[in-house]
Amino acid sequence: MQTPLVEAIAVVAAAPSLGDNTGDVDRLKRALPSPLATVVVPFAHLAKVGERFRAAGFAGAAVVNHLAGGVELVDFLPALPEQLPAMALDLGTTHLEATLLDLRTGTRLARATRPNSQAEHGADILSRIHFAGKGEGLATLQQAVVADINDLAAALATQAGLRPETIHALSVAGNTTMVHLFLGLNPYHLCREPYIPMVNAPDPCHGADLGLAIHPAAPVWVLPSIGSYFGGDLLAGIVASNLDQEETTSMLIDVGTNAEVVVGNREWLIACAGAAGPALEGGVARMGMRAGPGAIDQVTVEPETRAIRYRTIGNEKPRGLCGSGIIDLVAGLYLARMIDIRGKFRPLAMGERLLAGPDGPALLVAPAEEAADGKPVVLSQIDLDALMRSKAAMYAILTTLMHQVGMPFTALHRIYVAGAFGRHIAPRQAIVLGMLPDLPLETYQAIGNSSLAGAELVLTDGEARRRAQALVRKITYVELNVNQEFMIRFSGSRFIPHTDHQLFPSVPFYSEE
Amino acid sequence: MQTPLVEAIAVVAAAPSLGDNTGDVDRLKRALPSPLATVVVPFAHLAKVGERFRAAGFAGAAVVNHLAGGVELVDFLPALPEQLPAMALDLGTTHLEATLLDLRTGTRLARATRPNSQAEHGADILSRIHFAGKGEGLATLQQAVVADINDLAAALATQAGLRPETIHALSVAGNTTMVHLFLGLNPYHLCREPYIPMVNAPDPCHGADLGLAIHPAAPVWVLPSIGSYFGGDLLAGIVASNLDQEETTSMLIDVGTNAEVVVGNREWLIACAGAAGPALEGGVARMGMRAGPGAIDQVTVEPETRAIRYRTIGNEKPRGLCGSGIIDLVAGLYLARMIDIRGKFRPLAMGERLLAGPDGPALLVAPAEEAADGKPVVLSQIDLDALMRSKAAMYAILTTLMHQVGMPFTALHRIYVAGAFGRHIAPRQAIVLGMLPDLPLETYQAIGNSSLAGAELVLTDGEARRRAQALVRKITYVELNVNQEFMIRFSGSRFIPHTDHQLFPSVPFYSEE
Repeated sequence: MQTPLVEAIAVVAAAPSLGDNTGDVDRLKRALPSPLATVVVPFAHLAKVGERFRAAGFAGAAVVNHLAGGVELVDFLPALPEQLPAMALDLGTTHLEATLLDLRTGTRLARATRPNSQAEHGADILSRIHFAGKGEGLATLQQAVVADINDLAAALATQAGLRPETIHALSVAGNTTMVHLFLGLNPYHLCREPYIPMVNAPDPCHGADLGLAIHPAAPVWVLPSIGSYFGGDLLAGIVASNLDQEETTSMLIDVGTNAEVVVGNREWLIACAGAAGPALEGGVARMGMRAGPGAIDQVTVEPETRAIRYRTIGNEKPRGLCGSGIIDLVAGLYLARMIDIRGKFRPLAMGERLLAGPDGPALLVAPAEEAADGKPVVLSQIDLDALMRSKAAMYAILTTLMHQVGMPFTALHRIYVAGAFGRHIAPRQAIVLGMLPDLPLETYQAIGNSSLAGAELVLTDGEARRRAQALVRKITYVELNVNQEFMIRFSGSRFIPHTDHQLFPSVPFYSEE
Repeated sequence: MQTPLVEAIAVVAAAPSLGDNTGDVDRLKRALPSPLATVVVPFAHLAKVGERFRAAGFAGAAVVNHLAGGVELVDFLPALPEQLPAMALDLGTTHLEATLLDLRTGTRLARATRPNSQAEHGADILSRIHFAGKGEGLATLQQAVVADINDLAAALATQAGLRPETIHALSVAGNTTMVHLFLGLNPYHLCREPYIPMVNAPDPCHGADLGLAIHPAAPVWVLPSIGSYFGGDLLAGIVASNLDQEETTSMLIDVGTNAEVVVGNREWLIACAGAAGPALEGGVARMGMRAGPGAIDQVTVEPETRAIRYRTIGNEKPRGLCGSGIIDLVAGLYLARMIDIRGKFRPLAMGERLLAGPDGPALLVAPAEEAADGKPVVLSQIDLDALMRSKAAMYAILTTLMHQVGMPFTALHRIYVAGAFGRHIAPRQAIVLGMLPDLPLETYQAIGNSSLAGAELVLTDGEARRRAQALVRKITYVELNVNQEFMIRFSGSRFIPHTDHQLFPSVPFYSEE
């Protein structure tokens, strides 16, 4: 650890005397090591710091926040604390995930997750921006997420056997809209051309500013965003993956509510984002669900017999398909020739698995008698069409971005795949679908919740904070919402694996009969 | 003016577009001149700044506070304002005096004064410190002075034809106790050995932190103190008099509740303070009063006829004697041999002016028929004894200090005399009494309310702020409350002009008959 965001610094000062009658707080500042000579004591903490320093006999530990604008001294403890807890938060649209770190050692003390209760007022980003614009909507959404964070802070504190008020810092990685709602900033212009945030890189505020039930002077360090559709969550992923530090060029893909992609190296970085996520995250397919207990996350389709085998998370009875399950299934259906290159069911090849559902034709994945709640798990043509759009969007995003940088996919050293998508997806099946480029499988590397990992890094490491701030100026962001090239590439990608099947030499190509 | 505390900076930013989609606040920061590259937007003002910048069409004026810890951007106006009002305050124990400056031009817009309504809870510093220690005493005193300042702000704003919320900064010069009470800091240790302030140099806070009815983001810049008995008011006087900038050695004397003295030049400064003031400020003598309408401020005693002539402020009927009047009178009484070298009435020389008052013998200064309210103005022996103590204390302070620096009085280039004392006193009469050293009269220079002048300077001039901060480390403070040398010198000074009359060659010496 180098320069954690908050530090407890041992102080032993000379006691006041007639010959040394400087003020208590001035005395405390004077006793700090010289790099902290310009430390500021914010007025909100002045009386407390002065009183605690005197009560402790002019010796103990000063608590300082290392902010880019300067160092602030916010508390005084009678002795160096055993632990200095700080909370890292991945502030997602649907879920919040947080860890508690000890900034004295870097040790992780606890981990917790919970749904984003803003969902009550809107399932996705656009509906929340809409809700924020009505009456007290913005305040309602802010209060909801602050309550969620307080809930997580309490859960983390309980796990670690301490009080939430001892949490001395909070780092937040979230998409640009979630950050606006958390800070109470009007998100109106985020979703309207030309898609401008109120702020990309907010200066740090404090727990008390936001009504957080942690230490009132805890700095709240928000990872900066690059644009409306490129948030601090992806920036955290860059920091966590070291994409901005490597000599070789690599790519980072984060599929959440949007698909966000960045490619680059220590010299340059270029990024874009687009709506490719919902079908993959389980938000669109009727039988889709998040990767949780009962979700079918792995599927094989026997090419000869066309038998379908699946695995569920937690080995529970199946309730639906998560993103990786759908990708496995559809890749398998293609290789077994049960769907054609346009992603349409081939009825003659489906046999008894073809159902006439209320929304049109569907494939029976798990019959009612095997499934949870006695309801069969099916994949409808509508679900399939949604997946085809998502996979086309993903590949179009990747190719548009690589075209911008003038490099072939083969020039990539690594493709880091973040989040639940990265953890569960089998790159091979995604290649078969033409969603991810046809590269050696070892190119792909799942890096887990890199948003949370980046949030942890900015808590423990001043260099990571400087990198995060520098990235705002370093990253070139390509706006895909208005990109003509993207639309053309999207159309070309709506086949399995692609209209230009030579782009996917490892994938069998079945010309239409 | 160089770097006023608050500045309005013209900004014209490129409008957002798809090709330039940085956030509003980031855009604003980017448009500032490069010395402000590291400007911080405090969270309390983030949403307002962002919204006003956009509403103004991305052009107008950014309001920035130049603080030692960094520059903060706190407001955005649609255009450069015609005026940028700021308030300078001399925060006295008995009176508050304030001016309103325009920081765009340095022009003084208004001036106002009012009593310190804390006086209701204690006339002097010690009784207020005592009151602050009881129950809600500290909060009561803080609220009282905040209300007084709001009252002055409203008066200044009315005079200048503007709203108090447009006051964008406040500078405060006050003694250490007044500053503690204003900031809500416990003054308990100020009056107890070893006399330690809670803070000498508080970092700036903001109007909203203190409940001030000025601009909520207005920086409140408090001139630092050196010790419990050496406050920001005197430090302001040093800044205003340029004592710390001159090659020659000079002295500054400020007589308020205490007598505060500093001697030095641009290389070194040494200071002390002591209780010499009350009799001089009108706080002790029964007929003493502040220099206001009806106060006798000039007196002559005809040596031959022993006739007493006086002048009153405003030419009103006399109500009492202010400090300069008492000094004139007593010097005249000595030269007319109506009092002896110990400051005792000589009854045989007083004739009909000798009264037997309820408190012992007294001198009739103005008979009842000439005086206001039909009450005669008298000077009792008790008053005279108090003056003798005060004048002895003053001279003892000055000689102790000069002895500390190893210089004779004749080495002084100037003696600046601050405040009402400096404005009204005749140095010649003070020399006759042995209160001030026997130097050529041109050595003495009255500099008015230098506390307020210094407070004005830190508003308009960044260099003055740096000087004020540097002075904290530059000044050596000598604590007289425990100084044995001072006590010896005090005893030697309790004669007119002095036990060692050779120290005052210009003053006639009358050996005791």
